[in-house]
Amino acid sequence: MWLNASCLLEFQIPVPSPFLLKLRPRSGRNQWIAREEYILSPSAPVNEFTDMFGNLCQRLVAPAGNFSVRTSVYVETADSSDTAPNAPFIEVQQLPDDTLPFLYPSRYCESDRFTEMAASLVRGYSSGYDQCTAIVEYVRNTIEYTPGAGQQIISATELNQLSAGVCRDMAHLGIACCRALSIPSRMVVGYLEGLVPMDLHAWFEVYVGNRWYTLDPTQADMNGGRIAIAYGRDAADVAIFSQFGNPVELLNMKVTVEQMSGPNY
Amino acid sequence: MWLNASCLLEFQIPVPSPFLLKLRPRSGRNQWIAREEYILSPSAPVNEFTDMFGNLCQRLVAPAGNFSVRTSVYVETADSSDTAPNAPFIEVQQLPDDTLPFLYPSRYCESDRFTEMAASLVRGYSSGYDQCTAIVEYVRNTIEYTPGAGQQIISATELNQLSAGVCRDMAHLGIACCRALSIPSRMVVGYLEGLVPMDLHAWFEVYVGNRWYTLDPTQADMNGGRIAIAYGRDAADVAIFSQFGNPVELLNMKVTVEQMSGPNY
Amino acid sequence: MWLNASCLLEFQIPVPSPFLLKLRPRSGRNQWIAREEYILSPSAPVNEFTDMFGNLCQRLVAPAGNFSVRTSVYVETADSSDTAPNAPFIEVQQLPDDTLPFLYPSRYCESDRFTEMAASLVRGYSSGYDQCTAIVEYVRNTIEYTPGAGQQIISATELNQLSAGVCRDMAHLGIACCRALSIPSRMVVGYLEGLVPMDLHAWFEVYVGNRWYTLDPTQADMNGGRIAIAYGRDAADVAIFSQFGNPVELLNMKVTVEQMSGPNY
Amino acid sequence: MWLNASCLLEFQIPVPSPFLLKLRPRSGRNQWIAREEYILSPSAPVNEFTDMFGNLCQRLVAPAGNFSVRTSVYVETADSSDTAPNAPFIEVQQLPDDTLPFLYPSRYCESDRFTEMAASLVRGYSSGYDQCTAIVEYVRNTIEYTPGAGQQIISATELNQLSAGVCRDMAHLGIACCRALSIPSRMVVGYLEGLVPMDLHAWFEVYVGNRWYTLDPTQADMNGGRIAIAYGRDAADVAIFSQFGNPVELLNMKVTVEQMSGPNY
Repeated sequence: MWLNASCLLEFQIPVPSPFLLKLRPRSGRNQWIAREEYILSPSAPVNEFTDMFGNLCQRLVAPAGNFSVRTSVYVETADSSDTAPNAPFIEVQQLPDDTLPFLYPSRYCESDRFTEMAASLVRGYSSGYDQCTAIVEYVRNTIEYTPGAGQQIISATELNQLSAGVCRDMAHLGIACCRALSIPSRMVVGYLEGLVPMDLHAWFEVYVGNRWYTLDPTQADMNGGRIAIAYGRDAADVAIFSQFGNPVELLNMKVTVEQMSGPNY
Repeated sequence: MWLNASCLLEFQIPVPSPFLLKLRPRSGRNQWIAREEYILSPSAPVNEFTDMFGNLCQRLVAPAGNFSVRTSVYVETADSSDTAPNAPFIEVQQLPDDTLPFLYPSRYCESDRFTEMAASLVRGYSSGYDQCTAIVEYVRNTIEYTPGAGQQIISATELNQLSAGVCRDMAHLGIACCRALSIPSRMVVGYLEGLVPMDLHAWFEVYVGNRWYTLDPTQADMNGGRIAIAYGRDAADVAIFSQFGNPVELLNMKVTVEQMSGPNY
Repeated sequence: MWLNASCLLEFQIPVPSPFLLKLRPRSGRNQWIAREEYILSPSAPVNEFTDMFGNLCQRLVAPAGNFSVRTSVYVETADSSDTAPNAPFIEVQQLPDDTLPFLYPSRYCESDRFTEMAASLVRGYSSGYDQCTAIVEYVRNTIEYTPGAGQQIISATELNQLSAGVCRDMAHLGIACCRALSIPSRMVVGYLEGLVPMDLHAWFEVYVGNRWYTLDPTQADMNGGRIAIAYGRDAADVAIFSQFGNPVELLNMKVTVEQMSGPNY
Repeated sequence: MWLNASCLLEFQIPVPSPFLLKLRPRSGRNQWIAREEYILSPSAPVNEFTDMFGNLCQRLVAPAGNFSVRTSVYVETADSSDTAPNAPFIEVQQLPDDTLPFLYPSRYCESDRFTEMAASLVRGYSSGYDQCTAIVEYVRNTIEYTPGAGQQIISATELNQLSAGVCRDMAHLGIACCRALSIPSRMVVGYLEGLVPMDLHAWFEVYVGNRWYTLDPTQADMNGGRIAIAYGRDAADVAIFSQFGNPVELLNMKVTVEQMSGPNY
């Protein structure tokens, strides 16, 4: 499936302000970036680097005044995400080195506090993928998905005491429980075709059966093309923009995702 | 200063259990590892790799029964840690890329919740090192250092509501406040000469004045040689051992640090 | 300066053949990729990864038949390359770690065989940048630049016995001599605005005065915008395509570089 | 098998001279460093870092006068190196990313010039390991192993025109031919138990059958414990010491390898 996706951010900047952006999706085994656009207006010197998780990050000082960031990508991706009932748990000693950071508790996924809860949620399920989907079912059934409701980022333990959250929060709770079972779990921020209302989206991936699988507590099925923008341990790692110093105003944010035909040759 | 330091861990392992150890200090700009020993008893196949923070990590499956890990290092290090009154704050856009992960909130250092508190603690101090020492003073004066008191790891926000904690907890609170000021701050686990009672120790480092400086809320001054074993965002990254699966019993842990003369040639 | 550059490769593939491509320029301190296109026709699954030098590499199996790769970039870059008369030599012990691989001899830059020649070329010049430009002058004056003449890649020692070579060969000779003076030197493949005849181009960079500077033995001055596509030790590292297995036919290769106005907002 | 190995280097240094050393073997899947010693005399500030191939490298400025480097390791390693008749060739598109640098020609392994020769050497052998051993047989039978004969490093094409070489040269020729067949091949410098006369040794590894295998053109069989000190593309990457600036005198070099019983508990 070919998708065209875009994200527009418009800021009002009182004084020149350092930003760290993560808005350049990378081609990987699951997606091919065939066209990409990244327009800063006004333009500003940028230092791009790769972070610990392989994300391309853009560092810049936004000039005072109106400042906009407009990115778009044209991507080939799968029509739906793979599922893998019965995909087995991978013993810690067999995990690839680069999955290990995703076993530990992180800012918004306090997996060290979910040992008992996770164990009770997966009782009777076979180890691995089926445990993860049991956890996702719990999150989906327990937490009311309320797009747009989340301003302050809350953690898995905080969400677990509430009844409602955004996609990011629900991913955090799913991640915390999966990690509590020693299943590597990572946060993904990206685009999901057909999301209602359209916005940037967050979901998570688990490493079972020797590969990463996509899980999404906000969606009843795994249909819809996805474009991953950034990976990390939780929302602290994958913010599409971080701004330092005096607060700036985000005037406008607009996200689009359209299905396209393939490139014309 | 030449130090000889050792750490002995003795476990009773009911069933073969995966471990991840971080007990091989690296030579760096501040310490030279002249001799090192790392004995597993009984011996077991180990996969050693480098994590995202540059720590050498050892992965193995400990066999059932008594299992001990005995490490020692003979190291040249400074007699005391550098201090740098007035060392300036480095603007985010000028920071080296590899300091950036240490700006974000992490599991036990919820810096996103300390913006106001940190600002109030450093009012009147010049930006940079002096802000950090003001924060360390606050932690030292507010939290009673109670070595050995900490079983469950608590976070900076949790510690801030209590009156007592271990070195690790106090470092977390210091880190959370420094990061809230956009100063990169990282956890260090290691040896400190002369620590009473002797144990592994935790402190933190801040990046100001274009280098990392050592801070230690548990110590009245910066005297004493230090050997860094592992670096990370907080205790979740620098555990000297993580064990997965059924719990095992840590029967004994013994740490020694002695000052030595230099090597005989 | 805004440049629009493109590269088209058309192959006739007898049997499915593995390719490794390096055709996705990265944003860095000197260039900002504002728009990029990378079209495979027919499309094929690609695995993109980052190599040791930070280049984004694309691995794929080209299907039998006609296969084309069409890439374009729209980039903000400098109008001309910085020069730095008198920029000093950096002592080896002060060099950043990531410049060190560019001190050693490599396949086509046998710097270990150029110690005497390099010393004689730079006699009387102050250490650093001025030595490098003396070497570039020698290459420019000694070797006749014959675009399109090079099929087999020849090395610096081989070129030094000939009177003519392509840009790649001349860069190799320059690199070999600079490395022989312990100056880190790296190969760059990319686009050069105004190159006659238009083609992909190769030049090199040297690390003096605490940064990388561009040198180009084929050009009388450093005017013209440049877009770096890949960095490496020599041509062996920066081939824009490597093909494995039975030979395939490159039917057509077309490169364009146009100066543009900036993006319309 | 437990080995105790040591390497002593004694220099006479006329003026302070930068050195880059690679003398700290790492634990890996095949060897466990249980004890290690690294003594500089006189001691000097060292900056240790990890190079592109994962080797720990030590950078320092040796003071004028007598300067010695004394390293020893106590290591658990296999009694002999695995062999794998029939282990299959891995198609380029299936190779792990980190094996790819070892497919390309390098300074002393001009694999691009060995396509025909390699093809003719392996005619009739099944693709993969058996081709590699055919190449090793050719090198062993064609080149007279003359320990101690090699001062200047010569390349595979140069050796191929001679009748005699040292272990390093013979490894280069083996590597060049294997790479010419698209088999990743890397140089190893290390210790070999029982080597006559005892010295540091060089051999190579090939990636077939989904792992690295050891090959050694100088040895009739694969018996003897090995300790890898450094990995790279060829001798240019794995020099145990590189010295920059005015030449220094290596007064003495002594290598020992002894078989030991395991550690006493």
